[in-house]
Amino acid sequence: MTQRLFTPGPLTTDARVRDAMRRDWGSRDAAFIALTADLRRRLLDVANGADSHVAVPLQGSGTFVLEAAVGTLMGREHKLLVLINGAYGRRMATIARRLGLTVETLDHPENAPVDAARLAAALAADPAITHVSLVHVETTTGLLNPLEAVAQVVERAGRRLLLDAMASFGALPLDLAGTPVAAVLASSNKGLEGPPGLGFALVERTLIEQAEGRNPSLSFDLHAQWRGFAADGQWRFTPPVQIVAGLVEALRLLETEGGPQARLARYQRRFDRVAAGLEPLGYRLYLDRPLQSPIIATFVPPSGRPFDFAALYDRLAARGLVIYPGKLTDAETFRIGCIGALEDADFDDLVNAIAEG
Amino acid sequence: MTQRLFTPGPLTTDARVRDAMRRDWGSRDAAFIALTADLRRRLLDVANGADSHVAVPLQGSGTFVLEAAVGTLMGREHKLLVLINGAYGRRMATIARRLGLTVETLDHPENAPVDAARLAAALAADPAITHVSLVHVETTTGLLNPLEAVAQVVERAGRRLLLDAMASFGALPLDLAGTPVAAVLASSNKGLEGPPGLGFALVERTLIEQAEGRNPSLSFDLHAQWRGFAADGQWRFTPPVQIVAGLVEALRLLETEGGPQARLARYQRRFDRVAAGLEPLGYRLYLDRPLQSPIIATFVPPSGRPFDFAALYDRLAARGLVIYPGKLTDAETFRIGCIGALEDADFDDLVNAIAEG
Repeated sequence: MTQRLFTPGPLTTDARVRDAMRRDWGSRDAAFIALTADLRRRLLDVANGADSHVAVPLQGSGTFVLEAAVGTLMGREHKLLVLINGAYGRRMATIARRLGLTVETLDHPENAPVDAARLAAALAADPAITHVSLVHVETTTGLLNPLEAVAQVVERAGRRLLLDAMASFGALPLDLAGTPVAAVLASSNKGLEGPPGLGFALVERTLIEQAEGRNPSLSFDLHAQWRGFAADGQWRFTPPVQIVAGLVEALRLLETEGGPQARLARYQRRFDRVAAGLEPLGYRLYLDRPLQSPIIATFVPPSGRPFDFAALYDRLAARGLVIYPGKLTDAETFRIGCIGALEDADFDDLVNAIAEG
Repeated sequence: MTQRLFTPGPLTTDARVRDAMRRDWGSRDAAFIALTADLRRRLLDVANGADSHVAVPLQGSGTFVLEAAVGTLMGREHKLLVLINGAYGRRMATIARRLGLTVETLDHPENAPVDAARLAAALAADPAITHVSLVHVETTTGLLNPLEAVAQVVERAGRRLLLDAMASFGALPLDLAGTPVAAVLASSNKGLEGPPGLGFALVERTLIEQAEGRNPSLSFDLHAQWRGFAADGQWRFTPPVQIVAGLVEALRLLETEGGPQARLARYQRRFDRVAAGLEPLGYRLYLDRPLQSPIIATFVPPSGRPFDFAALYDRLAARGLVIYPGKLTDAETFRIGCIGALEDADFDDLVNAIAEG
């Protein structure tokens, strides 16, 4: 049975993306070298970063590219301040600590945005902090953090911002010519609506130039991979050729759709449909509306009667409708992803199926 | 134009493998959890390792899983002896040194197999060595190293063997019940004839049990991923769902074909066809026949006239026939991969196309 995925990625891909995956490529052949160059150019274009940044794709999941960026761009002489209001902020701190880096965290409740004023005070109080990391959209909840305010605070304090844009890239407009971000980290299978299997970093050229030989991981050395692309256009290690081809097609579709602005409007439309359908049934959004991105919605089940997520999940899955468990530490919730190559009607079907329960 | 890939992987996949990649999967859904379990069981079965080893697949290229295994299974208290007769042996040494491990190498010429007697002497001379790594088939040349002899020497000396089986897994029979190998490391896109994007480790259960928290890399922590599979059957980080599905289908096809023994016979038949076709034209095999695996053949061009690899490559590529450059440090060569979902007639076409030059 064909599944419709209301998940934060892997998600439902367009048939044209899947068609683009139906061929084999010699990974050192001219055709694939050209495809890789197209991928890298398109990734930069999505964020208007061609003048200032370089694109370095990396095999594997999004977490891999977070770790690769921290390992490549930071060393023992640096200190990272991790802004946290969910599981992905916590993960960044875990990654950096395990690598032996010096890490500080600024913790927030999971239903509150990162506080730029607290950040400014923390940076003023600790001159040792060299880098700050922010999760743009916390997939834990769907919370949208105030990127612009955070980026300005970091810039004014003379520090570097690492942006986990995993859930936002391709859907929330990002203008690297106007917003100071040292490195943007994201993956193929969320707002870009490609297949999973690739992450990528968009790194300020001046920053990656200074990173030679720093990463103790050969596999995750983004500087070496960047130099490799510059030298012969090839990946250092076997690339997932079908995933690259699928992602390039997904980037073409993003362009055709009208770019992130148009995509965001599509996601917002669906999000509004789901919320409008479920709220009358007693489900309420976990986040206050102004904090909510339309990427993924966290719902609190109706109060006053027991809620069995597994039963709901199974009942929906039996109809090919796949939703997502909650990830909150302090509240029972579930999540509905609003991204992917689905139609508005699919979201109506989902609401109707939940309503029948 | 459809390309036929005479390369060591990414290679030409079967249409059934590509068909299996034509759907989306919720990565935390029961169907995908079952698919992952099937993958892990089939990988162990290929090497008869179900009683002694556990299978831990990892996103990314084969190099990633080499690094993950070394980082997970070794620490500062260990010392690695790397057996080298080609680029992939050298790469293993590079990976381990960059991770800060203590590394010794035993270097051989690129046209000579690893010498088990020299290994025995080296182990006797240095009790600090705890682990030994061997490349089963060096893709640099196609050289087949004497796994059985090396494994017995390592076992008798009470050390642990890490086997880079990237180019051999699925094609050269491997019996973990009879051959003492602590960890087998390979990838999806060579002898298994799957799509690229996944590596995997088959690790002795007793060894991985001791590896908790050792790897400074969160992404590459094979112990944590093994525990994660045991707990809920899920990947810790987004898996490349289409690649997993393609690889499972490729493993089914391997079983249908009759397992590694039958696949090896197919590769040998092609290898013999290519060698029989090219030798009369003045191309000679770089390796002595007894050292040569039928995975990939390294050819030395005819002597007495200039050889232009780029021209040959382009001429063949114009017909959709993709060969591979040489990787030797000391001789001009090129390589022809004999693996992949091609017919014997494809190899005749290749020979004929080279002959016309």
